Amino acid sequence: MYFASDNAAPAAPEVMEALGKANEGYASSYGNDEIMDRVTARIREIFEAPEAAVYLVSTGTTANALSLSVLTQPWQTVFCHRHSHIEEDECGAPEFFTGGAKLTLLEGADAKIDADQFRNRAESTGVLGVHNIQRGALSITNVTEMGTVYTVDEISRLCSTAKELGIGTHLDGARFTNALVALGCTPAEMTWKAGIDVVSFGGTKNGLMGVEAVIIFDPAKAWEFELRRKRGGHLFSKHRYLSAQMEAYLTDDLWLKLARQANAAAARLEAGLTRTNSFEMLHPRQANMLFCGMTRAAHERAQAGGAIYHPWPGNHPATGPSDEILTCRLVCSWSTTDAEIDEFLSLVQG
Amino acid sequence: MYFASDNAAPAAPEVMEALGKANEGYASSYGNDEIMDRVTARIREIFEAPEAAVYLVSTGTTANALSLSVLTQPWQTVFCHRHSHIEEDECGAPEFFTGGAKLTLLEGADAKIDADQFRNRAESTGVLGVHNIQRGALSITNVTEMGTVYTVDEISRLCSTAKELGIGTHLDGARFTNALVALGCTPAEMTWKAGIDVVSFGGTKNGLMGVEAVIIFDPAKAWEFELRRKRGGHLFSKHRYLSAQMEAYLTDDLWLKLARQANAAAARLEAGLTRTNSFEMLHPRQANMLFCGMTRAAHERAQAGGAIYHPWPGNHPATGPSDEILTCRLVCSWSTTDAEIDEFLSLVQG
Amino acid sequence: MYFASDNAAPAAPEVMEALGKANEGYASSYGNDEIMDRVTARIREIFEAPEAAVYLVSTGTTANALSLSVLTQPWQTVFCHRHSHIEEDECGAPEFFTGGAKLTLLEGADAKIDADQFRNRAESTGVLGVHNIQRGALSITNVTEMGTVYTVDEISRLCSTAKELGIGTHLDGARFTNALVALGCTPAEMTWKAGIDVVSFGGTKNGLMGVEAVIIFDPAKAWEFELRRKRGGHLFSKHRYLSAQMEAYLTDDLWLKLARQANAAAARLEAGLTRTNSFEMLHPRQANMLFCGMTRAAHERAQAGGAIYHPWPGNHPATGPSDEILTCRLVCSWSTTDAEIDEFLSLVQG
Amino acid sequence: MYFASDNAAPAAPEVMEALGKANEGYASSYGNDEIMDRVTARIREIFEAPEAAVYLVSTGTTANALSLSVLTQPWQTVFCHRHSHIEEDECGAPEFFTGGAKLTLLEGADAKIDADQFRNRAESTGVLGVHNIQRGALSITNVTEMGTVYTVDEISRLCSTAKELGIGTHLDGARFTNALVALGCTPAEMTWKAGIDVVSFGGTKNGLMGVEAVIIFDPAKAWEFELRRKRGGHLFSKHRYLSAQMEAYLTDDLWLKLARQANAAAARLEAGLTRTNSFEMLHPRQANMLFCGMTRAAHERAQAGGAIYHPWPGNHPATGPSDEILTCRLVCSWSTTDAEIDEFLSLVQG
Repeated sequence: MYFASDNAAPAAPEVMEALGKANEGYASSYGNDEIMDRVTARIREIFEAPEAAVYLVSTGTTANALSLSVLTQPWQTVFCHRHSHIEEDECGAPEFFTGGAKLTLLEGADAKIDADQFRNRAESTGVLGVHNIQRGALSITNVTEMGTVYTVDEISRLCSTAKELGIGTHLDGARFTNALVALGCTPAEMTWKAGIDVVSFGGTKNGLMGVEAVIIFDPAKAWEFELRRKRGGHLFSKHRYLSAQMEAYLTDDLWLKLARQANAAAARLEAGLTRTNSFEMLHPRQANMLFCGMTRAAHERAQAGGAIYHPWPGNHPATGPSDEILTCRLVCSWSTTDAEIDEFLSLVQG
Repeated sequence: MYFASDNAAPAAPEVMEALGKANEGYASSYGNDEIMDRVTARIREIFEAPEAAVYLVSTGTTANALSLSVLTQPWQTVFCHRHSHIEEDECGAPEFFTGGAKLTLLEGADAKIDADQFRNRAESTGVLGVHNIQRGALSITNVTEMGTVYTVDEISRLCSTAKELGIGTHLDGARFTNALVALGCTPAEMTWKAGIDVVSFGGTKNGLMGVEAVIIFDPAKAWEFELRRKRGGHLFSKHRYLSAQMEAYLTDDLWLKLARQANAAAARLEAGLTRTNSFEMLHPRQANMLFCGMTRAAHERAQAGGAIYHPWPGNHPATGPSDEILTCRLVCSWSTTDAEIDEFLSLVQG
Repeated sequence: MYFASDNAAPAAPEVMEALGKANEGYASSYGNDEIMDRVTARIREIFEAPEAAVYLVSTGTTANALSLSVLTQPWQTVFCHRHSHIEEDECGAPEFFTGGAKLTLLEGADAKIDADQFRNRAESTGVLGVHNIQRGALSITNVTEMGTVYTVDEISRLCSTAKELGIGTHLDGARFTNALVALGCTPAEMTWKAGIDVVSFGGTKNGLMGVEAVIIFDPAKAWEFELRRKRGGHLFSKHRYLSAQMEAYLTDDLWLKLARQANAAAARLEAGLTRTNSFEMLHPRQANMLFCGMTRAAHERAQAGGAIYHPWPGNHPATGPSDEILTCRLVCSWSTTDAEIDEFLSLVQG
Repeated sequence: MYFASDNAAPAAPEVMEALGKANEGYASSYGNDEIMDRVTARIREIFEAPEAAVYLVSTGTTANALSLSVLTQPWQTVFCHRHSHIEEDECGAPEFFTGGAKLTLLEGADAKIDADQFRNRAESTGVLGVHNIQRGALSITNVTEMGTVYTVDEISRLCSTAKELGIGTHLDGARFTNALVALGCTPAEMTWKAGIDVVSFGGTKNGLMGVEAVIIFDPAKAWEFELRRKRGGHLFSKHRYLSAQMEAYLTDDLWLKLARQANAAAARLEAGLTRTNSFEMLHPRQANMLFCGMTRAAHERAQAGGAIYHPWPGNHPATGPSDEILTCRLVCSWSTTDAEIDEFLSLVQG
């Protein structure tokens, strides 16, 4: 019963098999491997973006920080949600890679940026000229850090404001596919058709060992990205092992299948929890993560039974601080089994 | 016949097997996996350094740049050979990670820093106070970029000067084990006993998919290193796959065995080439790389036969520029076979 | 009638005289002038800090950003008020000089940091270890950006929390002397005795052409500061002209006299405005700045009469957005005359 | 007898007078003063560059580092002479302001870049793609650090190579006017007509208190420069005092007159020294600086007589290390008098 994070799950068997197959003989290094050529072609096809530049890196922090670095000058700011990974969980990587840009923190329910607040803050940014930090980029996260999913319309509205104000847009898609299958739209609809310029297309949390693609729809940024990737130590010499993972991921819809499994597991877990009276959803469950208030009694039974998950900052918002209600995050991955879920449900029901 | 680089070789079968084994069930993320505990213990044992901090990263550029960043302030300089990887092949990663430090380029035969020049340059660095860049760190490379190997005494002498001048020392050991088995000394003798403070302990070029350890003998630098690694995007969530590679590497002397194979292959290649009159060694062959002048005729036969290797900048130093003599780098890896070598020798002998 | 900013005022005659006197013959450059020796001694005396390191720079942004750079690592955050100069008016200079640190924005009435919020935010910063930005420094501003003045007790309380949490403290004293004379305390009481580590001791807004001192109470930071100052382009070759200004400033209590004049002018202005029913104070007037709501009619009369001042962001907080009430900032300087004030009062009274 | 540096000289009386005049009443801050409008117009006229962007900063290091920062990306290199101010005397300011670019050090007699070496080095820079630092900018210094002067043809040849290779060009003109009057050409001929993109137009060493102009011939870079200047802490609030100095400098040919005085003083000194047999010129004296070998006996007489000048690194190149011959730098300024020179000559002649 492991609900702490989807990054604690193993890699999918298809991925391990592909790695073994890639490990034969010599291969050109530094991204010049033949598998990468196929990966690029496949991603362009999936995203209906024949001109897109495609790069692989090994961590989500890297994908985000490098993406932002080609969208944001050091004297500019990135508009993002207060509860975004780039603000809370990357130890300042965006600041490091951009050369010292700011992050302007926006509010919004369920970790989704409030569109009006974004417009107001962006419009009032930089108005005193050289004294102020300037508008840089918009970064949104889908699936959000609270497990909710922006609709295509919501993304479009935010990006439309960004375009109007002349700034670029980034999508942190560490859980891109979980959002995609939740929305039932196409990758193009969730990204460039909605106004996204650069995507962190995550694989690690959805069955890979450690690969994220960065997709840049405007190829004019490609060379700068390549230089920044190398300079950041993120260009792998034995690059074929990244390519092979991503190729397996995109073969026979594995990426979609794994995300559907994770989302379905979370739905099953949610259904079970809502049948108890020990849990309350703090945010709508829309993909593979649940944020819940739970009774202390349920928590203690779960802990005693060996369930692993993170308490989450803050107390139950409806009832206020309480010794009786705790908050927690429960994450399902592609590898979460029905048995695990049922065992957990059985534990917490008492 | 692939002699272009040891980073084009596959990973060793033992490593792939370990990856498969590590891919079972859940594991704590971000370096808290159990395999990493064992890797740390094993490296401390091998290096006879029970206090050392040990970290894994995925590229050699990262290992070097992060290592230098904990040894060098932005207003300081790193003393290194003009032909060092950190100067020539990392697109400014050391400058990026240190926040803009300089590299002071030193000369020396066979890509080994001239000890007198180092002393002279270091002593005259920073003498005008605040106007000058200050002394930062010494970085040496073993195996060097020209395939030669510093002796323990040579390392000691350079480090002794560094210590006297109050600066830290870094060893770029992208081919650490190739140097170690060439010298026949212990890891401790080649590093901290000789005065090295921080080591990039390479695995990628010697049979791993993509793992380098950084070993910091003074644990006071450990926390800063961890923050810099995360901030640089180099902390893997699914860290177990790095740990598993390194554990396999250090099990049953695999690391030593692989390096010996590579060095032996290079020795066999050298022996064969010196029996022809088409080749001349430009630097002593001391590990797994050869730098040669070769006749154009031999080159053309090799190319026609499908041999892959890099021409190397500059012409034959003894005879001067010539259309008839080309220079090339030939690198053997753990996977180079006698058959490959013999086929190459047969081709170039005409 | 110029109330736009104290940095639009001329330099005091004593300062110009001192510049003329300093402009005789040769003088050692780069801070080695004899006048600087006297300035250092005088500042140490005034601050009762015989060990303090003292440096001169030419802008307030520089004084702040360099001060923060010796207190904050790139992976740390500076706690400051949302309405602080370092956040709103320096185009990211703190981020630039610190190498990419964050600013954590705190609330608090009248631009003074809420002490409880500071404690809460600081205590919850960095608790997830390497994933989070770490605690760096506290920066407070006295006089604040809303013209209010922290009491010595308020400073002490904030600094006490900072010390408890192990972080350094900076005082942005662009209007240091205006606060000092408002409080009637000693420089030591307002700084190191209250727990401040580094002070930006402003002169430019109080009668100098362009000089700020940075006072570092812990001399261990001095050499790093000197290197950062030079590297930032802020070490003057003809340094005597900075020294001479500061020496004149500290001679015969000129600094105190000028600040008292500015504060008295603001008090006179406030007294006059409160006798009208066209103005309302938005923050307590405690030094040389007034933030007011004013009627549109009064504003139009003032503009027509040639008064110069800045409207200030936001509308009247009590009454909400209104076409009838505008907000403005009125700043008095050492050179503001009673005649100017009376003319302004006469205008707005209609 | 002060020959240590031209930055130890006082400001010209005309400059002090202009400062006094500027110190009347209120003036708009941050570069919006009326004097600056006139300065911009005057510099555009003098440089025959009606579109040029013109900015004032207070130190030469700042002018250079900011200029380079708009010409060079972090992953690029600045080609400059090994003995350039940006390499030797700025504590890494170019690296700081560019975000970590490299400096590629070129040789050349008399501190003038060898044109063939520049071409060779620049052509071979970046050829291995993403692994290498890329070509950034060319920076030349006139007057050079050895007191020599590039001819217009020499500048043109270097810039022509730079343009061919697609890189920008910077002129460090800390002693711009000394070079100009030595060459007898126009400012346009020495700069943009010869291919220079950005100029550090020095004033401090030639009679100002502390002002340098940066002139950017391509106004597309102007806004970025303004943001970088502010972010670097180099935008003065009371900017009128910089403007006033520069306006006085450019009025009634003061700048030319002062530079001619300095050069003439150096010529007189040279003529006197060459009549002794105690001195030998190490570089041609072409402007206001002399680099000499001098006998120890002459040195001791000069010291005993109170002459102030700097010994200069290295020994006499012709005769090799010697206890009998010392090397020194002698700098004349606008304020050097014939009496000082004659007293010095008298001393050293014994």
